[in-house]
Amino acid sequence: MTAFEPQNPDYEAEVRRRFAQQPYNLALGARVEKVTPGRVELVMPARADLVQHNGYFHGGAIAGLADIAGGFAGWSLVAADQGMLTVEYKLNIVAPGLGEQLRAVGEVISRGRSIIVTRIDIFGHDGTRDVLCTTALQTLKIMRLPPELLVGAA
Amino acid sequence: MTAFEPQNPDYEAEVRRRFAQQPYNLALGARVEKVTPGRVELVMPARADLVQHNGYFHGGAIAGLADIAGGFAGWSLVAADQGMLTVEYKLNIVAPGLGEQLRAVGEVISRGRSIIVTRIDIFGHDGTRDVLCTTALQTLKIMRLPPELLVGAA
Amino acid sequence: MTAFEPQNPDYEAEVRRRFAQQPYNLALGARVEKVTPGRVELVMPARADLVQHNGYFHGGAIAGLADIAGGFAGWSLVAADQGMLTVEYKLNIVAPGLGEQLRAVGEVISRGRSIIVTRIDIFGHDGTRDVLCTTALQTLKIMRLPPELLVGAA
Amino acid sequence: MTAFEPQNPDYEAEVRRRFAQQPYNLALGARVEKVTPGRVELVMPARADLVQHNGYFHGGAIAGLADIAGGFAGWSLVAADQGMLTVEYKLNIVAPGLGEQLRAVGEVISRGRSIIVTRIDIFGHDGTRDVLCTTALQTLKIMRLPPELLVGAA
Repeated sequence: MTAFEPQNPDYEAEVRRRFAQQPYNLALGARVEKVTPGRVELVMPARADLVQHNGYFHGGAIAGLADIAGGFAGWSLVAADQGMLTVEYKLNIVAPGLGEQLRAVGEVISRGRSIIVTRIDIFGHDGTRDVLCTTALQTLKIMRLPPELLVGAA
Repeated sequence: MTAFEPQNPDYEAEVRRRFAQQPYNLALGARVEKVTPGRVELVMPARADLVQHNGYFHGGAIAGLADIAGGFAGWSLVAADQGMLTVEYKLNIVAPGLGEQLRAVGEVISRGRSIIVTRIDIFGHDGTRDVLCTTALQTLKIMRLPPELLVGAA
Repeated sequence: MTAFEPQNPDYEAEVRRRFAQQPYNLALGARVEKVTPGRVELVMPARADLVQHNGYFHGGAIAGLADIAGGFAGWSLVAADQGMLTVEYKLNIVAPGLGEQLRAVGEVISRGRSIIVTRIDIFGHDGTRDVLCTTALQTLKIMRLPPELLVGAA
Repeated sequence: MTAFEPQNPDYEAEVRRRFAQQPYNLALGARVEKVTPGRVELVMPARADLVQHNGYFHGGAIAGLADIAGGFAGWSLVAADQGMLTVEYKLNIVAPGLGEQLRAVGEVISRGRSIIVTRIDIFGHDGTRDVLCTTALQTLKIMRLPPELLVGAA
């Protein structure tokens, strides 16, 4: 993976702050495990309303997790007055999402002036080891944050 | 759109029954509006935990809705002992998901022996008219349902 | 489909001129059949180097055709000093590409300030009727054309 | 990357033989550089009909290369009487394809009973180092080869 320079020296706190502002992230029960420039790890514990009839995580919950893992990987690289808009993503569900939690790793693979592309891998656990459950490719657009979302806004 | 013949004459009741069995669908608050062979309409009302800081539906909730709209469109065409597995999907979020509810239309565009491909369009409402929010392409795999999921299973 | 207003009144001539400038389009043997605002129809005749061992069009040739059908659908809507850059696309090959030619229909489904999203359907012919071979979703970025590509440039 | 066991001990010769049978691969001027179980490297030299007005490889040629790099990565893992059918793929073009040749690396990331998922990275060269040009995710279906394509068929 390419090494990326963050534009915002305070990128980790920024990612954690933005993450906590979005109700959907919290509704998924996801939390930020680790943030480095262009890379974010999230964890989402199993919960009755996130699983299917067979006990595996539902594809929609997995997609939601993928979207935010990629989105915040991108967010770690932009300036303090910028944010991420998901343009599109595609995911392959390669194995059932099983285990007590899913772990999502979002990584920036390309940073352009207006477009960021990320790859996301999501892992379950079969009791012995991590099992790749989903892999995704995502296109993000860098947007200027509206004033009311900037830090210090009244 | 091509007209499809359902294999299960009881396809509508089957779709509604399977839909109601999946906790995630209910957690999204989604409901089935209409079922015809190869086509399903779902509605998902706005709710605090499905929206972002800006009041729009979150991309993850939209993806979840797209996944199930396409999945059940496929399910309407298969035999009573078959179900759907999502192989992959890709979605473009073309406008914010706004309004009191999202409406998702899933349609089968190709039915093969083992693979079904669907297209999904999701609409918000801007107060005057429907606004396309998301469009998606999805690949489903037809699977044989495990015995414990068959109707009449004890 | 939404009706779109072209920004360039000369959009049809522009699409045909830009199409003819790209060696790859000609190498595919593709030609422009019809241009309306936000919609382009292309035709690509069968040829030995575009088909597989089984006599069907190769997936790569189909992808090339899809890319340009969507790209020029987008191009029909932009200003005279703008062009299209393909950000990404995804295609499902739902049936073999068979017949004497493939016909591609590219349509804009969303036009934003910097991003255009298109849908592309590609049809073969089985001797009696058109058969959907491939469907695609594409994301384009509007770019300012470099001066040397503008009409009238020396 | 996971290590995969090939089902066909003669997998490398098989990949090279199948590759040489497809006219489109040869039309692209692509050649097989390296084959290991679940991984294939291809090279495609620059040529007038594969490039755009700006001198970069055309997106369609890149897609064709991605499709076959992933397809043969999958092919390296299946039995002697099996082949690959591309179900779908999605690619992000993250930088212009520039340089004297493109190098494509296709890798299997998941092998199921009927479905194989691959990731493909395509690199150009800027004079000093490799530059990621395109990344793709592809879904393949394992098919039984028709008798006339089996080795030793008259």
